[in-house]
Amino acid sequence: MTVVALLQLDPTVGAYKANVAEVEQAVALAAKEGADMAVASELIVSGYPPRDLLMDAEFVANCQAAALEVKSPIPLLIGTPLSAKKDRQKPYNGVVRVAEGRSSRIVGRKQLLPTYDVFDEGRYFQADDSPGIDRSLPGLSVGITICEDAWQHVGEVPSDYDADPIEQLSTWQHQGEPIAVSVNLSSSPYHLAKEGVRARLVRKAAKTLGHPFLLCNQVGGNDDLLFDGRSIVAWPDGTVVQAPGWCMGVLMVDLDHPSNARWLPWPDGKCGDNCRCEVQCVSEDDDPLTPPKGRDLLSAVTVGLGDYCRKSGIAKIVLGMSGGIDSAVCAAIACQAVGAENVLGLSMPSRHSSEHSISDAKATADALGMELQVLPISDIHSAADATLEKELENGNSVAAENVQARIRGMLVMGAANARGAMTIATGNKSELAMGYCTLYGDMCGGYAPLGDLYKTEVYELAHAINADAESRGATQPITNSTMTKPPSAELAPDQRDDDSLPPYEILDDILEDWIERGIRNESELTDDILARLHANEHKRWQMAPAPRVSNRAFGQGWRQPLAARK
Amino acid sequence: MTVVALLQLDPTVGAYKANVAEVEQAVALAAKEGADMAVASELIVSGYPPRDLLMDAEFVANCQAAALEVKSPIPLLIGTPLSAKKDRQKPYNGVVRVAEGRSSRIVGRKQLLPTYDVFDEGRYFQADDSPGIDRSLPGLSVGITICEDAWQHVGEVPSDYDADPIEQLSTWQHQGEPIAVSVNLSSSPYHLAKEGVRARLVRKAAKTLGHPFLLCNQVGGNDDLLFDGRSIVAWPDGTVVQAPGWCMGVLMVDLDHPSNARWLPWPDGKCGDNCRCEVQCVSEDDDPLTPPKGRDLLSAVTVGLGDYCRKSGIAKIVLGMSGGIDSAVCAAIACQAVGAENVLGLSMPSRHSSEHSISDAKATADALGMELQVLPISDIHSAADATLEKELENGNSVAAENVQARIRGMLVMGAANARGAMTIATGNKSELAMGYCTLYGDMCGGYAPLGDLYKTEVYELAHAINADAESRGATQPITNSTMTKPPSAELAPDQRDDDSLPPYEILDDILEDWIERGIRNESELTDDILARLHANEHKRWQMAPAPRVSNRAFGQGWRQPLAARK
Repeated sequence: MTVVALLQLDPTVGAYKANVAEVEQAVALAAKEGADMAVASELIVSGYPPRDLLMDAEFVANCQAAALEVKSPIPLLIGTPLSAKKDRQKPYNGVVRVAEGRSSRIVGRKQLLPTYDVFDEGRYFQADDSPGIDRSLPGLSVGITICEDAWQHVGEVPSDYDADPIEQLSTWQHQGEPIAVSVNLSSSPYHLAKEGVRARLVRKAAKTLGHPFLLCNQVGGNDDLLFDGRSIVAWPDGTVVQAPGWCMGVLMVDLDHPSNARWLPWPDGKCGDNCRCEVQCVSEDDDPLTPPKGRDLLSAVTVGLGDYCRKSGIAKIVLGMSGGIDSAVCAAIACQAVGAENVLGLSMPSRHSSEHSISDAKATADALGMELQVLPISDIHSAADATLEKELENGNSVAAENVQARIRGMLVMGAANARGAMTIATGNKSELAMGYCTLYGDMCGGYAPLGDLYKTEVYELAHAINADAESRGATQPITNSTMTKPPSAELAPDQRDDDSLPPYEILDDILEDWIERGIRNESELTDDILARLHANEHKRWQMAPAPRVSNRAFGQGWRQPLAARK
Repeated sequence: MTVVALLQLDPTVGAYKANVAEVEQAVALAAKEGADMAVASELIVSGYPPRDLLMDAEFVANCQAAALEVKSPIPLLIGTPLSAKKDRQKPYNGVVRVAEGRSSRIVGRKQLLPTYDVFDEGRYFQADDSPGIDRSLPGLSVGITICEDAWQHVGEVPSDYDADPIEQLSTWQHQGEPIAVSVNLSSSPYHLAKEGVRARLVRKAAKTLGHPFLLCNQVGGNDDLLFDGRSIVAWPDGTVVQAPGWCMGVLMVDLDHPSNARWLPWPDGKCGDNCRCEVQCVSEDDDPLTPPKGRDLLSAVTVGLGDYCRKSGIAKIVLGMSGGIDSAVCAAIACQAVGAENVLGLSMPSRHSSEHSISDAKATADALGMELQVLPISDIHSAADATLEKELENGNSVAAENVQARIRGMLVMGAANARGAMTIATGNKSELAMGYCTLYGDMCGGYAPLGDLYKTEVYELAHAINADAESRGATQPITNSTMTKPPSAELAPDQRDDDSLPPYEILDDILEDWIERGIRNESELTDDILARLHANEHKRWQMAPAPRVSNRAFGQGWRQPLAARK
């Protein structure tokens, strides 16, 4: 019986000493619980993504030295930046093997460097030309790959590489190397519906290699990247074992008995409030189940905001609360992330605000147990109107709407600066894509929890938040009124979002086509979307022609994928 | 006698039709003036840097087709993106040869892809493995390299590449290829004191190859990159010919008689007001002269802002004018870039503003012939103070200062939105590096003309602006009072920058060490800087310990390289 422990941890970028200390504690636990060897995630020493820290040779040398000095009672594979081999070359993304009573050594360097989407590894790293190998356990060689190294084999990435490290490992086997198990140290970011992809990846590798393939993933948020964990293992017969998402722990994998896999929550041995932390073991025809989309997204954005604050030394959050769905959902996420006692909401009614805008914000704040202050903006608004009178009178009418949003931005930032807190921006991806927001107004903030979620997904989050409260017997934070009233920026009398935008159910489908699939012409939309777009009675819309001149004219406004049809 | 024309043009990123039309007009001029062949700059069809437009396969195909269809009476080498060779691969950064009566063909693809600093070519392009060659002129083969391809040979770039395309060309020559001249299509950005480096580059290539080496560079601003032009040619004996900086035109190079080189200003055959447009021809021991630093920087920032506005469709500029040196210099640059009649300055005095803050701003605006409005912020300021009273009373005192800056940001943005103009941010690199500025306040703006210039360089610009006015017999725009008063943000009574920062003469030397040279410890500073830092009587300073945890906690504040010594 051989037990391999996958250390699913949440490193902080740059904090190599703290990261290494956590690895040492987790591997000690794994050894105590009977693991024969352990694997940590990609670049766990530096945290992922270390970005420009990698240009600091001293930092890289410190990481490498820290990795080589890790104390581990059992053989441990640990991901770390490795120093460049010569002047004017880049460092490596590598793996160090440590074990009590043995000298530490470098056992692998990443071959395939993703340089697309959120990845920039070609910018920072030198590529190696073969997979790694470790022979710590007698007669049981371990094949070593790092994240992207395993993806060429399954072909589901945008880059087509010359090398396929999984095939290279397979060739070594045929040449007589006794590889009993292969591992993949990953920092594989979360995106919707990713798990099915990872299961295909590990299954294909295990089948090709004829032995178990173990992928250890980072968990948590670093800057704008979220990692869901969900470390995953496959056997050649298609059996898959997957660790829980969004929490730290050690996945104990019995190579001979997949269903014996155990999860050890870490650091305190117990799960969070809403976490069940179950290891899933499924056979060839099934994929591990993901929680419903709303609940999974809620975990993602909460972990993301919480880690951002904790890792940046931010203890308190301030946000504007309009009574609308976006700010209500943001408030709930903020309370979960840093604690309700550390969150301040500002209700800032103007002459255009509805009655509900204050009462809904109050109801949400009360349900969450957070502080709410009501700061009417009318005095500042009048003074600003008077000061800018001449300009506003003769100019674009949107200018006056923006003034209100910027007054609110000033108040939120003023309270945040006074309290040493961070402002969060409450806008969503649909608004941002359409430019339906005010620069330096509601866009103020150090973090935008909903910035990558379409408006319709914000509603899914709201339902998940209410369901979660209900399951705990608490008051639902998002009021029925907030859920059902038509979205409005309330910057002009009786204003509604769908005066300026198509209804979100249609808009979001089009934005998804535009942003995720690169569709640029109305004729490429599906018949269903087209029918709904054209049937909309409130206003008629057409897709704007693809703007291909200048790709960065964001100083002034936004390019809009949809324009009102004349 | 063979004459090669280098087309030094200013393409707009994405506007491939317009870019190609300009190339056709310029090459027609070159042919009319007697050129035997012509060379355009790197990626002139797409403009440089095309960034994510390169991920749009249709855009790349359009560029390639447009390049192949260029009409040219003489052989012309033109830089363009080329389509990927297969699925999941990236496009190439290539060269197409066109000529009347011949079929167009692809004659080169870039080998060395810079992926550091402002460059990201590894992200977007596939690399080729050999230089290009063109045999349009009988018995006179042309060796073709693209920008970085020529830099490995001189070794002055951060990356060490496996290949050296100049050596490869040299090998081909020795194998019998009759290469008579080699060219380099460049989009080589401007930085201070770069020309000496380019002269070394072309001289070394010409010496190795034993024939003239011609580098054609892009000119103008694209997003945040500035290109100075200064296309340059070297002969094996070390003679160098260099085109003027910061203007478009055609450099006519007689390969047999360097001193016959001529400059044809383009498109209208005459230079700008302050441009002398001289071609320089120097012998082995000399480098081409650059104008004095202040004047060269003034050209750089003016071209940068002007091109940004023109290419983004922005006709008007609004800026806050405090009576300080930064905003005065920005106003002068803005007037030069888009015309004084399109610039609005706002003087926004508060209760902490000095008498001079209005009179100096007025004097500058009058000298420049631009509009100035005085909008006191006192009413808005009082209303904001009252609204935020409870927070400001008990909080960090900087919060109240930030409120004023944000009121001004709101007014400047309000006027800009009303007029359909762009706000420019007037801050400099010294302030930004120290966080001595207000997010969403004075940092508002679509472009920061001084954002990459240290405060001491802003004074150099101011002197150049005044000298320029004087030479035209005009009033100097930067008043003596603006030049000589101690810098102050005027956000608190009697506030001075050097209450919070070391004097700029010392600070800038340290920032340059920190930012450009990576120095992180006080002990690494020169004795001279240390002596001045410690001798400062106003306040004592020490270098802060290097922050290595989290490299992006910019949501909240800034990491400061210097802290007040306790």
